[in-house]
Amino acid sequence: MRWRYILNTVGVLILFFGGTMVVPLSFDLYAMDRSLMPLIKAMGITLVCGIILIALFRHEKTDTMSQREGMAIVSIGWTVIGLFGALPFYFSDASVIFVDAIFESVSGFTTTGSSILTNIEGLSPGLLVWRSFIQWLGGMGIIVLSIAILPFLGVGGMQLYKAEVPSPVPDKLKPRIRDTAMILWKVYALFTVAETLLLMIGGMSFFDALNHALTTMPTGGFSTKNASVAHFDSVYIDVVITVFMLLAGINFSLHYQLLKGRPLAFWKDSECRFYLAMCLILTLVVTANLYRTVYADPGQALRYAAFQVVSIVTTTGYATADYELWPGMSQIIIFLCMFVGASAGSTGGGMKCLRIMLGLKYCYKELFTMIHPRSVSHIKIGGKTVTEDVVRSVLGFLALYMALFALSTLLLAGTGVDFVTALGAVAATIGNIGPGFGMVGPVDNFAQIPYWGKWLLSWCMLLGRLEIYTLIIVVVPEFWRK
Amino acid sequence: MRWRYILNTVGVLILFFGGTMVVPLSFDLYAMDRSLMPLIKAMGITLVCGIILIALFRHEKTDTMSQREGMAIVSIGWTVIGLFGALPFYFSDASVIFVDAIFESVSGFTTTGSSILTNIEGLSPGLLVWRSFIQWLGGMGIIVLSIAILPFLGVGGMQLYKAEVPSPVPDKLKPRIRDTAMILWKVYALFTVAETLLLMIGGMSFFDALNHALTTMPTGGFSTKNASVAHFDSVYIDVVITVFMLLAGINFSLHYQLLKGRPLAFWKDSECRFYLAMCLILTLVVTANLYRTVYADPGQALRYAAFQVVSIVTTTGYATADYELWPGMSQIIIFLCMFVGASAGSTGGGMKCLRIMLGLKYCYKELFTMIHPRSVSHIKIGGKTVTEDVVRSVLGFLALYMALFALSTLLLAGTGVDFVTALGAVAATIGNIGPGFGMVGPVDNFAQIPYWGKWLLSWCMLLGRLEIYTLIIVVVPEFWRK
Repeated sequence: MRWRYILNTVGVLILFFGGTMVVPLSFDLYAMDRSLMPLIKAMGITLVCGIILIALFRHEKTDTMSQREGMAIVSIGWTVIGLFGALPFYFSDASVIFVDAIFESVSGFTTTGSSILTNIEGLSPGLLVWRSFIQWLGGMGIIVLSIAILPFLGVGGMQLYKAEVPSPVPDKLKPRIRDTAMILWKVYALFTVAETLLLMIGGMSFFDALNHALTTMPTGGFSTKNASVAHFDSVYIDVVITVFMLLAGINFSLHYQLLKGRPLAFWKDSECRFYLAMCLILTLVVTANLYRTVYADPGQALRYAAFQVVSIVTTTGYATADYELWPGMSQIIIFLCMFVGASAGSTGGGMKCLRIMLGLKYCYKELFTMIHPRSVSHIKIGGKTVTEDVVRSVLGFLALYMALFALSTLLLAGTGVDFVTALGAVAATIGNIGPGFGMVGPVDNFAQIPYWGKWLLSWCMLLGRLEIYTLIIVVVPEFWRK
Repeated sequence: MRWRYILNTVGVLILFFGGTMVVPLSFDLYAMDRSLMPLIKAMGITLVCGIILIALFRHEKTDTMSQREGMAIVSIGWTVIGLFGALPFYFSDASVIFVDAIFESVSGFTTTGSSILTNIEGLSPGLLVWRSFIQWLGGMGIIVLSIAILPFLGVGGMQLYKAEVPSPVPDKLKPRIRDTAMILWKVYALFTVAETLLLMIGGMSFFDALNHALTTMPTGGFSTKNASVAHFDSVYIDVVITVFMLLAGINFSLHYQLLKGRPLAFWKDSECRFYLAMCLILTLVVTANLYRTVYADPGQALRYAAFQVVSIVTTTGYATADYELWPGMSQIIIFLCMFVGASAGSTGGGMKCLRIMLGLKYCYKELFTMIHPRSVSHIKIGGKTVTEDVVRSVLGFLALYMALFALSTLLLAGTGVDFVTALGAVAATIGNIGPGFGMVGPVDNFAQIPYWGKWLLSWCMLLGRLEIYTLIIVVVPEFWRK
């Protein structure tokens, strides 16, 4: 463990991050908004802290990074950036207490989209952009993390993707990260620009269109409106956002392949087929459930069902309807979707379709082995055999996810919230969704969660975002030894 | 697959089962109750059907039984007996429809304790005894199943117990089942007699004491009173029942060892330590949570907390308090307890402490392997290394349990019940608990569940009781081939 190296890298991250605050600042300047000070103060503190860290922990350039160092940098980096990202909220006149600022910032960087702000439309343009922008940055981080870093650290079965990443230098982690990142970020940026334009065509202002594009692509879900996407009440806008949410939930290396001229990339990937089929089937079931019980018109039922199912499966969290008023079956589908999540290698959260598929295949294999005890069978994904240790690591991930879900629900209920809210809030944060159930439903927010509950949920968001293992391993004392 | 043999064995089971209807009949005779007819009709039909089956499918005596045949007999036997057990309810003047009678009977045999009867105290003595008696018979079945049959069929990691069963003839299944069964049933009967006497000392009538003893030992939870155990409102009775519920949740081979003169049997078993420690800790947490929020007196808080936590962890399901009026944290604890369940080899349901322990150890091992990739570590339970295939089969069980829980919740919600009821009712039936949440809370019952929901929940009860695999494997077409 090279501590100087780790802290130096974190310092560089913070410095870079401080620099990005120029973006929201420019929006406040353009709008001639009086409230420049929060952003200027936050930027100053962030830049100074970054410079101090770099100066204190000088380290020669290196092209190697051990597995442990990688995990430490990811976990510490993400947490620290969550803290600095809170400064603009804390200094603003939205009069939030410290934990609220942290919650909002972590919710942004983890692309969760849960909010403690009760009057979003009262924020300055700069702060609104800041909220969206940290989600967009978080999404960039996630793409790199899930496609270029975690597969090599062997986290939760992500090794499966090793082969599918464009890899110029196979055995060196750092150059690979850089090159892969540049390619995928271009795809990410392209989609963001395309969505902004399409939303503007639909009648959104440039400001609203940009902000929604910035939070759709990372499956974040922060909106510039109190009523979320329901504010615009436009079928066209609903359709555009639904399509881009769907795209954001697909493995970004498939987008890369598609743009490289392989039109069947989506179809050839078994996870992508599973994901798209699931979205389609659940949308149809919810539509059937809503028709005549909530909406008299089947078109309306389809519109709201599709948007809400895709919004939750992709873990975006925008709302066009209050699903807490829907019949029990639709509510249960929404709740279960919070656990499933989108594809691995996308910006979505949750357990990921790939792991669910592997888990189901594993169950089937176990049944088959009981019937034919002497048969030797292997689990295959997309025609390729999955190795034993990947299967074990996926099952461990699923078990750990459920165990931590249960524990966090218990602790959250201990802060005084009710049964449904506890289940809903933890499912929504550990899965990086946004809205939950009960007190934190799609038309409510997290402001009423007790003080310690907000800390707990911030931790849940980080836990989910860093694929459980990466964060929890840093907490095991054994990790730091020797 | 020797079909004649399977159907012959099922016929013997039905015949034996018809014979046991003499027990409730004698209570109706003694009470000179007019309502003898339901039981006489049911007994007649059952006996005749048993005789027909045996006569149609004659089969020479055999001492061997294949794994598949074992599973087929268990699954078919349990289901068929559930059907015949419904006859007395169906013929009675409790005016239940057919599915209700099935639900009540399956709930009895699977020792679940969920009821669709709204006025229990209005039943004839014979029917009341029938309800308790089928739970007691179900418990006997479970002990044999979980200690003498499933370990040899390799179901869900139960192989772990192979070594701990007294085994006179190691390689023949049938003699072993018979001998083990006789020993463990003596223990079971002994506890039942002891509890009856202790409850009578506390002021219960012989009839009530016997009925409650008959439903405590199988962790069933049917009561002769509408208000369940709360009806008696006696600290002494609460304590006696709590102790016997705790005992019923312990592996019966440990009771056997204890009675054989090994006083430290409980302490030496790591699952038993886990189970008792969990009951203690959760009781204390719930007590702290109830004190001042629900009960002003700490003694009262402890009394109701202990009873309800033990009742749910052991999957008995008696009620002395309406936990739906408790604070969120206590409710979440009760809900999570429904999944954990009691010890393997006890009459309790749920996932079982042993599997939860193994799952947690597995997660820890995975984390350890990430830190020290080259280390070789094994999972140990009670000092003994657990083999890879047991670990795999336990993880498969946990994954299948959660997957079927999710699916059943979805389907139940599809019949029209609300979010909380769907979660609560499925958790309570698949775990063989009894009361759930929402519409089926501890002071409500399952009468209001829609028609198809009752079928679904009856299936869930069987699924949970037969350790998932045994029942689900019969549904896989592959099982019947060749």
